Amino acid sequence: MAQKECSTNCIGIVGLGLIGGSLGLDLQAHGFKVHGLVHRSTTAQKARDRGLSQVISTDPQILSDCDLIILALPLDQLLKPSEALIGALPKKAVITDVGSVKAPVLKVWRELHQHFVGSHPMAGNANAGVEAGRKELFKQRPWVSTPESGTDPEALEKVHQLALRLGSQWTTAEAEIHDQAVALISHLPVLISAALLKTLGNERNPSLLTLAKKLASSGFADTTRIGGGNPILGKAMMSNNSAAILRALTSYRWSLEQFEEAILAQHWKQIEAELKETHTLRPEFLKKSDS
Amino acid sequence: MAQKECSTNCIGIVGLGLIGGSLGLDLQAHGFKVHGLVHRSTTAQKARDRGLSQVISTDPQILSDCDLIILALPLDQLLKPSEALIGALPKKAVITDVGSVKAPVLKVWRELHQHFVGSHPMAGNANAGVEAGRKELFKQRPWVSTPESGTDPEALEKVHQLALRLGSQWTTAEAEIHDQAVALISHLPVLISAALLKTLGNERNPSLLTLAKKLASSGFADTTRIGGGNPILGKAMMSNNSAAILRALTSYRWSLEQFEEAILAQHWKQIEAELKETHTLRPEFLKKSDS
Repeated sequence: MAQKECSTNCIGIVGLGLIGGSLGLDLQAHGFKVHGLVHRSTTAQKARDRGLSQVISTDPQILSDCDLIILALPLDQLLKPSEALIGALPKKAVITDVGSVKAPVLKVWRELHQHFVGSHPMAGNANAGVEAGRKELFKQRPWVSTPESGTDPEALEKVHQLALRLGSQWTTAEAEIHDQAVALISHLPVLISAALLKTLGNERNPSLLTLAKKLASSGFADTTRIGGGNPILGKAMMSNNSAAILRALTSYRWSLEQFEEAILAQHWKQIEAELKETHTLRPEFLKKSDS
Repeated sequence: MAQKECSTNCIGIVGLGLIGGSLGLDLQAHGFKVHGLVHRSTTAQKARDRGLSQVISTDPQILSDCDLIILALPLDQLLKPSEALIGALPKKAVITDVGSVKAPVLKVWRELHQHFVGSHPMAGNANAGVEAGRKELFKQRPWVSTPESGTDPEALEKVHQLALRLGSQWTTAEAEIHDQAVALISHLPVLISAALLKTLGNERNPSLLTLAKKLASSGFADTTRIGGGNPILGKAMMSNNSAAILRALTSYRWSLEQFEEAILAQHWKQIEAELKETHTLRPEFLKKSDS
């Protein structure tokens, strides 16, 4: 039986949004008993209607029997947890999170709990809230953990087994390397995509803007997709990973300036050579997810 | 009958790649007689096998009976047409093109032919060559024409009717406005997308790069799609629309700097407000093509 194999009484999930709700659905399907903690009673009722956990409450005490607890909170709340939540976490339980930035999370949580393991299951989509969770969200998606010298190896192994059970692709990395990698492949793209929309928003020639709106097609749609996404999530990325993002932006500005200089100098062969390189490079990033 | 309605003997298409081949398929389906001119005899045979026109040849003289001729050549060739092609165009025929940049095309062609009309059917996709043409490529896609004071109104109307017949959405604009609009919604996106790939290509920390490749997902795939596209096409855009692209880049750099300054100053509310604006703005560009 699944429960015996992991020696788990119940798994606690704090927050039943896209990630927490999806975890609740999958973990129940794998035979685990799941206790879900939410902030509002209206959310609790909606989560019960969707069957996101067997037990759902706004009372942190429902976590007291859990030996594995997943903090599936928005980053801002994860970094400033309430006293009630901290007090309700059993000392022997393994605690993990799902935050998209890891160094600031470790800085807070390594002091708060002895068996904390930093996690980032990379399975977001554009949806949010108690209606967003869905089955098999984590299947064949990366699940990064960021252990450090003080991380309890048994706790790490418990989170590892959880990720494998959900079908995720387990990877470990230093928190700083993780944060720089997500800055490059996730947070920087949001910024450069948003800046493209902002450029159109700044355009003051009305006939040009009207024509641009008529002519924009799939290329524009693709390039602006994540820059036109959830503003709250975007702000949370920027504010919690700003050092890595500024580093990525500096490198990006340099890349863009090289294109600009080549255009100014009419070095078309260089432009073509650069575009051949980007054409070759892109598939290396897409083996798993997209073509 | 379709032919009588347009008073058209035959329609000539110069080049049977994605655009020319698709035009050939649709125009035949609408009852027109189509003569296709190609450069190589091997291409001619492939085009015959695919039925892209009723008459296909490498001899420009096949255009001599046509009263409407569409130049579906790559931009570089369109801007430097051969003497043989110029000599074969009947003086009374209406000539139009499909080039993605219009001011340089008008500069060349207004001198070469009295009944030239600048056109840009915006129906490209990632495919190219004699195998790429497909039916109904132009249906519900924009077809921009860029008439100027010297443009023959009857010739313009003939091209207008052609675009309507193919199901396109007809728009007219000044050539300079057109070129600035495509710089903003098509050429600038290629550059900023390519610069993102180049930033990753410049990364020298191997563990960071390996992790970035593992973690890159749909957001990265979307944002880099057109920057990882056809290098020859990308170079042609840059070299033939460089003034408008440099103008767009200047505006873009300013937008990106404003984000960078807000991050440096930790103005998170401003970031959120900007991202709310981009979130609202994006759908205005996508009503036709994508969600």
